[in-house]
Amino acid sequence: MTSVKKIVVLKGDYIGPEIMTAGLAVLEAATKDTTFAYELIDAPFGGDGIDRAGDPLPQSTIDVSKQADAVLLSAIGGPKWDNAPRRPEQGLLEIRSKLNLFANIRPTKVTQAQIDRSPLKPEYVKNTDFVIVRELTSGAYFGKPRKLEAHQAIDTMYYSEEEVTRIMHQGFKMAQKRNKHVTIVDKSNVLATSKFWRKIANEVGKSYPDVTIDYYYVDAMTMAIMSKPATFDVVIIPNLFGDILSDEAAQITGSIGQIPSMSVGESGPNLYEPIHGSAPDIAGQGIANPISMVNTVAMMLAESFDEKRIADKITAAVDYIIENHYVTPDMGGTMTTGEVTQKMVDYIKNYE
Amino acid sequence: MTSVKKIVVLKGDYIGPEIMTAGLAVLEAATKDTTFAYELIDAPFGGDGIDRAGDPLPQSTIDVSKQADAVLLSAIGGPKWDNAPRRPEQGLLEIRSKLNLFANIRPTKVTQAQIDRSPLKPEYVKNTDFVIVRELTSGAYFGKPRKLEAHQAIDTMYYSEEEVTRIMHQGFKMAQKRNKHVTIVDKSNVLATSKFWRKIANEVGKSYPDVTIDYYYVDAMTMAIMSKPATFDVVIIPNLFGDILSDEAAQITGSIGQIPSMSVGESGPNLYEPIHGSAPDIAGQGIANPISMVNTVAMMLAESFDEKRIADKITAAVDYIIENHYVTPDMGGTMTTGEVTQKMVDYIKNYE
Ligand SMILES: CC(C)[C@H](C(=O)O)[C@@H](O)C(=O)O
Ligand SMILES: CC(C)[C@H](C(=O)O)[C@@H](O)C(=O)O
Repeated sequence: MTSVKKIVVLKGDYIGPEIMTAGLAVLEAATKDTTFAYELIDAPFGGDGIDRAGDPLPQSTIDVSKQADAVLLSAIGGPKWDNAPRRPEQGLLEIRSKLNLFANIRPTKVTQAQIDRSPLKPEYVKNTDFVIVRELTSGAYFGKPRKLEAHQAIDTMYYSEEEVTRIMHQGFKMAQKRNKHVTIVDKSNVLATSKFWRKIANEVGKSYPDVTIDYYYVDAMTMAIMSKPATFDVVIIPNLFGDILSDEAAQITGSIGQIPSMSVGESGPNLYEPIHGSAPDIAGQGIANPISMVNTVAMMLAESFDEKRIADKITAAVDYIIENHYVTPDMGGTMTTGEVTQKMVDYIKNYE
Repeated sequence: MTSVKKIVVLKGDYIGPEIMTAGLAVLEAATKDTTFAYELIDAPFGGDGIDRAGDPLPQSTIDVSKQADAVLLSAIGGPKWDNAPRRPEQGLLEIRSKLNLFANIRPTKVTQAQIDRSPLKPEYVKNTDFVIVRELTSGAYFGKPRKLEAHQAIDTMYYSEEEVTRIMHQGFKMAQKRNKHVTIVDKSNVLATSKFWRKIANEVGKSYPDVTIDYYYVDAMTMAIMSKPATFDVVIIPNLFGDILSDEAAQITGSIGQIPSMSVGESGPNLYEPIHGSAPDIAGQGIANPISMVNTVAMMLAESFDEKRIADKITAAVDYIIENHYVTPDMGGTMTTGEVTQKMVDYIKNYE
């Protein structure tokens, strides 16, 4: 008998719950009549955490997440909590840290159906298919001291050997399963942490003789993502630079509203989340793009539960709605979140 | 009688001297038969500084630069000096600091002639015309401690109130002369220095009631530069983020080989330089794109010497060669650096 998988659902803020509903509807449709069994566990988090439990990351949410098989998170934050003592984003940084989710994986794939949506000319963007492996629990995001004083402010970028080494192995291992090409991004002509990053990349790389390595300064990489995105395979990048460049990479697909991500640790559950924000400006209108959340669900099924066939069914449903322009306004369509979701559910029902 | 302007020439490395020669040829042609008189003062700097004087920034170069009316710098650095005790880039960071050049101004303008060269679709890129005002002498580039140890590394991001205030005034003043719109870029949902940056922007903004302000997180801005570049006017950004986003902005023009920049301090000469690197891979082949250096010369004439008419003549020459495809291979042409330069010189000679 297969065990029932425990999925913690952190439903998000503003458009967060709208797209979570869509994602869960697709999950239900796609797993129906399969052997995959799951249980959803709702837990307060982000703005919703502040509202329901007084904190963006209540201890109970950490506890239940640690026991889960996967954590599914939707977009969080927004103006409602701007003056909260601890803002929703604080919860996000903390859950990454508490669950030790040191690697954030963000795929950038431009399918034939998406080429038209890209701001880039087709000849630049075609065949793009790379993943960004972003370090997620150190660097400028967590270094101490961090001080905001009346007349000055300080942040610290920090990396230890262990932190850099494990993210490198993560990236190189992924490359071995893909096209065996790693790109190391840093600013080693200026920063000490970046010199360190590059040095360790070079050392770790020696254990993966089948993988080609190249090195880019972050400023040059921001150009290359636009001018030759199809040349990359696995991009290993420090936390802060990864935040910036993964958004740039998302944009070349034409809509950040499509991109899932996965955060992984040494052990414990992975966390899955769309990479976009909670879009307070369009919340409540029923027009949020559900694709990112649906792709996030597919990624969870494939990566945490090895349910590649179910994931493929979902991905096919996404391709189907994009090709047929059954999409929300941000992608040039006229459908609501619910209508788009229904189209995917119907497609999945009839999927052979 | 007009005084003779002193221009310090730091000729650069690899393709640096090749494009400097081009820039100076155009300067000579464009100022001929005008009242503008200048003297060129060659000084060792960067890799050339190491070779000729044992250091990327000899004291004599600092001294002569401080006395100058402007400093004209070409691209520096390269593999030849990879193992030098002080690398060429060190000289660049230090001259910015020693001359107190706290603001780096990088224009991104996409003219009709350039639209075809952009990796972006025309409807995205048309009408783009903004300037990036990058803080240049503080932030992650200069913060202490900076440590590279065996098992860990540290960098420090630092900003003082004075440093942030003066760059804000610089940007807001520029906006008043342009389209009265300032965009503040930071990562204030995570970094203390960014919260500080945004707070001071907000305060300084109150003294410029005619200027509209908006705020972008750096990750969102990296998307906006691609998806709606024409909506920006003046972008004020910390040192490290500015390094990254100004290269992204350069890329949307289709060739970083076109973009000039200017670094300004509270007093003393401005420093002018192309924003691209020294391209060791194509050095010595006579195919380096001279446009960035020529635009840099035009910027110097307009900004340091108030010679708007001469600058316009040069800009017209650049438009002319782009329109007629008299360009180097990086821009899809077949001409050499020398041939392109000659086309500009000839155009200027016949300019009414
Ligand atoms: C919301 C914010 C704190 C977060 C980050 O900077 O990591 C987000 O931009 C992301 O990339 O997941
Ligand atoms: C060469 C390097 C140190 C420099 C920087 O990072 O500032 C360059 O990229 C620039 O933008 O002028």
